[in-house]
Parts: sequence; structure tokens; C-alpha cells
Amino acid sequence: MPGPLTLGQIVARLGGRVSGDAATVVEQVASLDGAASRQISFFTGSRYRAKLAATQASAVIVGPESEGETTLPRIVADNPYAYFARVSQLFNPVVAQPPGVHPSAVIARTAKLGERVSIGPGCVVGENVAIGDDTCLYPRVVVYPNCRVGNRVILHSGVVVGADGFGIAEDGGRWVKIPQIGGVRIGDDVEVGANTTIDRGAIDDTVLEEGVKLDNQIQVGHNVRIGAHTAIAGCAGIAGSADIGRHCTIGGAAVILGHLRIVDHVNISAGTLISRSILKPGTYTGVYPFSEHAAWARGAAELRRKGKNK
Amino acid sequence: MPGPLTLGQIVARLGGRVSGDAATVVEQVASLDGAASRQISFFTGSRYRAKLAATQASAVIVGPESEGETTLPRIVADNPYAYFARVSQLFNPVVAQPPGVHPSAVIARTAKLGERVSIGPGCVVGENVAIGDDTCLYPRVVVYPNCRVGNRVILHSGVVVGADGFGIAEDGGRWVKIPQIGGVRIGDDVEVGANTTIDRGAIDDTVLEEGVKLDNQIQVGHNVRIGAHTAIAGCAGIAGSADIGRHCTIGGAAVILGHLRIVDHVNISAGTLISRSILKPGTYTGVYPFSEHAAWARGAAELRRKGKNK
Amino acid sequence: MPGPLTLGQIVARLGGRVSGDAATVVEQVASLDGAASRQISFFTGSRYRAKLAATQASAVIVGPESEGETTLPRIVADNPYAYFARVSQLFNPVVAQPPGVHPSAVIARTAKLGERVSIGPGCVVGENVAIGDDTCLYPRVVVYPNCRVGNRVILHSGVVVGADGFGIAEDGGRWVKIPQIGGVRIGDDVEVGANTTIDRGAIDDTVLEEGVKLDNQIQVGHNVRIGAHTAIAGCAGIAGSADIGRHCTIGGAAVILGHLRIVDHVNISAGTLISRSILKPGTYTGVYPFSEHAAWARGAAELRRKGKNK
Repeated sequence: MPGPLTLGQIVARLGGRVSGDAATVVEQVASLDGAASRQISFFTGSRYRAKLAATQASAVIVGPESEGETTLPRIVADNPYAYFARVSQLFNPVVAQPPGVHPSAVIARTAKLGERVSIGPGCVVGENVAIGDDTCLYPRVVVYPNCRVGNRVILHSGVVVGADGFGIAEDGGRWVKIPQIGGVRIGDDVEVGANTTIDRGAIDDTVLEEGVKLDNQIQVGHNVRIGAHTAIAGCAGIAGSADIGRHCTIGGAAVILGHLRIVDHVNISAGTLISRSILKPGTYTGVYPFSEHAAWARGAAELRRKGKNK
Repeated sequence: MPGPLTLGQIVARLGGRVSGDAATVVEQVASLDGAASRQISFFTGSRYRAKLAATQASAVIVGPESEGETTLPRIVADNPYAYFARVSQLFNPVVAQPPGVHPSAVIARTAKLGERVSIGPGCVVGENVAIGDDTCLYPRVVVYPNCRVGNRVILHSGVVVGADGFGIAEDGGRWVKIPQIGGVRIGDDVEVGANTTIDRGAIDDTVLEEGVKLDNQIQVGHNVRIGAHTAIAGCAGIAGSADIGRHCTIGGAAVILGHLRIVDHVNISAGTLISRSILKPGTYTGVYPFSEHAAWARGAAELRRKGKNK
Repeated sequence: MPGPLTLGQIVARLGGRVSGDAATVVEQVASLDGAASRQISFFTGSRYRAKLAATQASAVIVGPESEGETTLPRIVADNPYAYFARVSQLFNPVVAQPPGVHPSAVIARTAKLGERVSIGPGCVVGENVAIGDDTCLYPRVVVYPNCRVGNRVILHSGVVVGADGFGIAEDGGRWVKIPQIGGVRIGDDVEVGANTTIDRGAIDDTVLEEGVKLDNQIQVGHNVRIGAHTAIAGCAGIAGSADIGRHCTIGGAAVILGHLRIVDHVNISAGTLISRSILKPGTYTGVYPFSEHAAWARGAAELRRKGKNK
């Protein structure tokens, strides 16, 4: 990590332009209301105008339309939030674990590890697994055999890659297990949150394309495909063989049923259950509106009546 | 695992009959569209007729009603999907971890392990735990003290059996913890998916009867009973003391509230919250239908209005 | 743990009063219908009157209004359920793991451990973590660097404290990671259930105040604050920067969206998604009522129609 930087040095690296004193020195990022001297924050809309006025930050990042909102030294950038992310990366490590394989990790002899991997304590990497360069497994990640993890991937603690998909066939009241002989392929620049699970394919592979971002506690069923640069928030569940496009966003606790298709550039609201394919980009929602319990109970009773009366 | 088998050899082991050349050799299973030579696939309905026509498989498994749909060598079986599962078991191990206890596993001295158990790296098995024959714990499973796991059970990575149930009593604005002194009993032939949690009972045991199949990331509360041969999909939550019958299916992310009863042969749809006992077999659903966001917002506003107007 | 106690000895420690023979000896707690001799149970309402009549318990705990419901030796207490919890604590350990650090745990040299901590096998405690006195980490807990855990805290197996929050900024169709440089602060007397995840803050800390109780498989996003003595049931999801008051209860699988505020003394029903701030104490619900599938389908179709027709 570099030490302190002037605004001029930052724009030399990341683009944008300085308005005010380019020699202003900053050494860390902060929120508007938490900032202290030598820290840089960002401003993204009029909702935060009072906080901007009161901030103790030495500098802020603003969009061109907001350049006049403050007299503080500022960096003007088209996308202040993404610019802020890049500035934060200058001051802070993206991966907070040193490279190397911790001696308590259990790595199968046939596993192939890339350059500069970081594998934390208690991780287990199975037979014939391939892990790319600069990839980080935080403590207690398990990768089952025959899975492939790309470059610059981050797997947080408790992630399980490649456990058996839920493949069972009913036979006379009993369940017969279907061996899950596919694997998992995780592309480059994917990040997977804590305790998320990604099942191996039944026959073919489960696939996460490059740039996919998964939050914590997500379940990805067997033979799912998640298209490049799609982001999924915590507690979502993706059932088997769902085919999700690129550049989608899926809100927290949303559920995508199996064997359906979602095209590129679809946004699913938090808590929504998707029961049919979505073939048109857009935003889709299906959440029961909450209210005080008594009001809800009246509405729910009527809804239930309607189903019965016909 | 056996090597290649002829269709004749397969029906000699598994039943059914061959239509076409019984000397056809296969050595692996495949999907219709992914199959190559020397692979066997299955056909279960007219929806897949085009794939059947185009398949490169050497043989297929079909039901009696579909025997005439193809001229490929085929095995005719009453339940082609279950038959396929059994054929796959001939060619592939059901458990992909060798028997034995990995040296990094921590097994309490008072724990009793059955014959041919397989306990992966990083597992922790507590005091007075009993684990049956041919049972497999994949890496990083935890079994708390005083729990019993049957024969031929599979616990996937990250499973936690026997953590304390959520037993707290309110007392003057504080929560008093109720010690959880029951255990967990898991019957034979149960499979539990990655990162699923099964809490120990408050006083009596939490019970999973034989043949229960749980997918990933399911939460089973204290003193739940899940009847034999019930299957539950990922992310479902079963609250404390729920009593679920045999031969039920519960869809992904469904929620069963506590202290209620569900009889045998009930199917709960994905995403449904069950708030009352179900005393009649059948299929039950309660999901807000999703739509484009603007359409949803209109419907939701009306629903909310109705609750308020009365 | 003490051995057997008389009712008289119990009230001397815990308050309340004895009705009937104060020399009655008990040595364990039980449910009314599971109780045997020398066990003590509790009675909280007329719903359980038949069980009270049939119980084999040697004694029961009852409220003042129920003193006449039984002739068994009994302890009369204002809050029988909380009293039962305290009696159970007399006979059973609240933490079922001995103090000390298991040799297979990986503790960073800069971590500070309090007195009498219990850290189970496979735990990982990162740099600059502080863990308070009498705190228990069951097997396979991970605490990322720079997090603080209070006194008398219980973290169950699979808990992950301090993984990165889901901070990403969109930039030309790609996601830029925002380093998560805040930590997590967990107050005294907090309990966290198995496989629950609590993310570190983006810039400032994520905070669980004293006495918070979290069940299993809960996701707590970055910069959430959960007020003191709030209890949250399993599978709930709390999105980033949600600010939840004190003395709230949140039902299982409920979802709280990000950047909103819930005041003290709010109860959220299981399965409810909270999409706006709640500024008034009370109980709030939003769940689609379940019914037999065909009835549900009719009601849902009408709901969908309404959204479209306007």
C-alpha cells in the first residue's frame, strides 16, 4: 500500500480532475460524517447535502453536476462511487490475508495451485482441483474434488464449492441418490461471500462466469449458470439448472426456481420468488407488502376468501 | 466401481428389459444432449423428443410408453429416472471420499464410530456421539456431544449437528438462556446438504427419521421431527417443535413455523410460509406472484389499502 | 453443577415461593409429558392442563394464577418460563465446552483472549481480535482480523464474524470492490447461532449491542446496528446499514432491507420483508397466506390481473 497521496497524485493514477488545491494530502477513505482530517469521502446526491456541509474530510469525490456543492478540495469524476472504490483500493488491501498456504490447510496432492494464492487455516482443497493465480481462500473454505476456480477469485470463510447437488429420484416411496458427477467452474474475478454454497453439477458443470459477485449465505444449485458480472445479494437461493444472464442483479433472499431462464440485464427485487422464465430485461418484484399486523390480517383474509369463492 | 457393462449385464443387476442390442456397451451416464458414445442417457417425456432424436448416446433408458420413440438400444423400465439413478450408481461412487478418519479430524475419545466410516479433514465429533456404519462426514462437519447418526448417512461440508436450539425466555427485558439438554437423532440413509444446521433438542431430542433428504443451508430447529423419506430443498427453515410427516416434500426457501403438525404426504411449494398445521395430504402454496415492478406496485398498493379500509 | 436440590433450596437461590412440600428433591428439568420422578417441569397455560394432570414430574413451576391447578409440590413464580430457564441453568451448563484453547485452533499472535475463554477445535481468530472473558467459541468459528467480541458471548459452530461486507460499485458493467475496512463489535452476553454470518463494516463498524440473541443461519450485513436485547430467529437476513432498535423480535426468515431504521420494541413476524423504516413500536407482518394450491392459484391470478389492468 502507498502512504499518503495528494489529490494530484490520485488523479494521475485514476483519472478525473482536481478542483481546488491539488496538493491536499489524504491517506484514508471515510464516510462524510465519520471523516477526519487527511481523509477523503464522496458525495452522490442531494440527500447527503447536510452531511457534506458538516464533513471534516480534507477532500471529497463528486460528480460534475455537484462540483459547486462544496468548496472543499475535490476530485471530479463521472462515477464518484466507483471512483471512491478505486481510491479505497489505493489505501487498503483488497484481500486481507497474506499469500501462501497455511500449514493447517489440507491440499490434495493432485490439486494445482496458481501463483501467489492465499489459502487460509482450515481450508480443504480436494483432488484435481485447479485454483488460479492471486486467488484467496479465507479460513475454512472447502473445495470438493474436480472443481476449477479462476484467477483473482475471493472465497470467504465457510464457502463450500462442489458439494453434491440435490439429485434424488423417487422410487416406491424411497429416494434413490443420483451421483453428482459434474464439477464447478468459477471464472476470474469472482467473489463469494461467507457460508455460501455452490453445488457440483449432476452430469455437466455448475458455472459462475467471470466477474460474478455473490454475497453471504447464498445457495447455488447444481447445473446453474450465472452469467458474467451478475451480482446476487445475501440469502438468495438459485435452484438447479437455472440459467441466469449477464449483468443481472438479484436482491437479498430472492429465490429463482429451477430449470428456468433469465436473460441479461434483469433485476430481481429482494424477497421475490421467480417461478417462470424472464425473457425481457427489466425489474421484477413479488413481495407481500407488510403493514401493522391487524391490517395485514384483514387483507390476507380477503385474499384467502377470493381463492376459495371461485 | 465396475468397468464397462453391456445393457444385458445392467438389466441382470437392476431389472427391466433390453430392447435392441443387449450387447451394447456403456461405461458412463450422460444427459441426452451431452452424451457421447458408450454413454447411456434417459428419456422421460415428449418435451425432450428433439433431444432424444439428436442424442449421441449409445443407449437410453425409457418407460414402456416410450419404447417406440427411438431405435437406439434401450432399457425399458417402469421408472426411467430412478433406473437412471441406479445405473449411475453402478458407474460412480455415491460417496466420493475414501473410508477412514482424516488425521486432522478431532474425534472425542468417548465417540463411537461404526464400520467403514469416512470422516474428512477438519471434522469435529463430540463426546458420546455415535456414528453408524458406512456413514460419511465430508470435510468440516461438526457433531456436538450426545448426538446419534445412523448408518449410510452422508453429511456434507459445513453441516452442524446439535448446536443449541434457540431457547430463550424473556425476563424483564432480558433474555435468559434455556440450556439445551436434548440431542439429535439422525436415522439411517439420511443425507444432509452443505451448511445445513440441525439443532439439538431443548429437553427431548430432535429427530430425523430414516431416508430423510435435506438439501443445503436448511435450518432445523430444536425438537423438530421430520418423518421418514421426507425431502426438503435448499434454504428451507423448520422452526422448533414442528412435527413433519413422512413422504412429504418441502420446496426451497419454504418456512414451517414452530409447534405445528404436518401429516404424511404433504407437498409444500417453494417459498411458502406455513403458519398453521396441515392435517390433509395435498399441495399447499402461498407465494406472492411476481411481475414487472410497476405492475406489482399497483397490486400491492391496493392490497395494502384493503387492510386499512376496514 | 450442583447435585439434587430441594424446592426450598431452589427458591433460596432464585426467589419465588414453594407451595406444598419444600423438601421435595429434584435433579433435572423436563417437559410435562416427558418428566420422570425427581424432575421438575413448568406450566404456562390452560392449553397444557391435561398434560399437567398426567405428568410424572415430582414438582412444577407455576404462575400465581395457576397455583390451584395442581396438588403437586410446586414453585410459584411470576414468570414460570424464565424461572424454569434459571432452574435448568442450575442443573445444566450453559456452555457445554470446557475452557481453554484447543490445540487445533489457530489464534493470531496479536489476538487478545480474556479469562476463561473456551475456543473449540478448528477455530480461527485473526490479527488484533479481542475476545472477552468467559466467552465460548464452539468448533470451527472464524473471527476475521480487527473484530471485538465481548464477555460471556457464545458463538456456535460455523459462525463467521467479520467477513467482507457486500460492497461493490458498478462501473461500466463491471463491479469494483470496495475494501471493507470497518470491523465488528459484539457486546456482552450475545449468543450467535450456528452458521450465522456477521459482516465487517465498510468503513465504520457493524455493531451488535449487549444481550442480542441470534439464531442459526442469519445474515447480518455491513454496518448494521442491532440494539441491545433484540432477538432474531433463524434464516433472517439484515441488509447493510439497517439500524434496528432495542428489545425487538424478528421472526424466522424475515428480511430487513438496507439503510432503514426500526425503533425499539418492534416485532416483525416470520417471513416478512421490511422495505421501509418502522418508527412506531408494534407488530408488523407481510406474508402471503398459504392455501391448497388450486385456491392459491386463483387468488394469485386475480392479484396479478389487478396490477396489469390499471
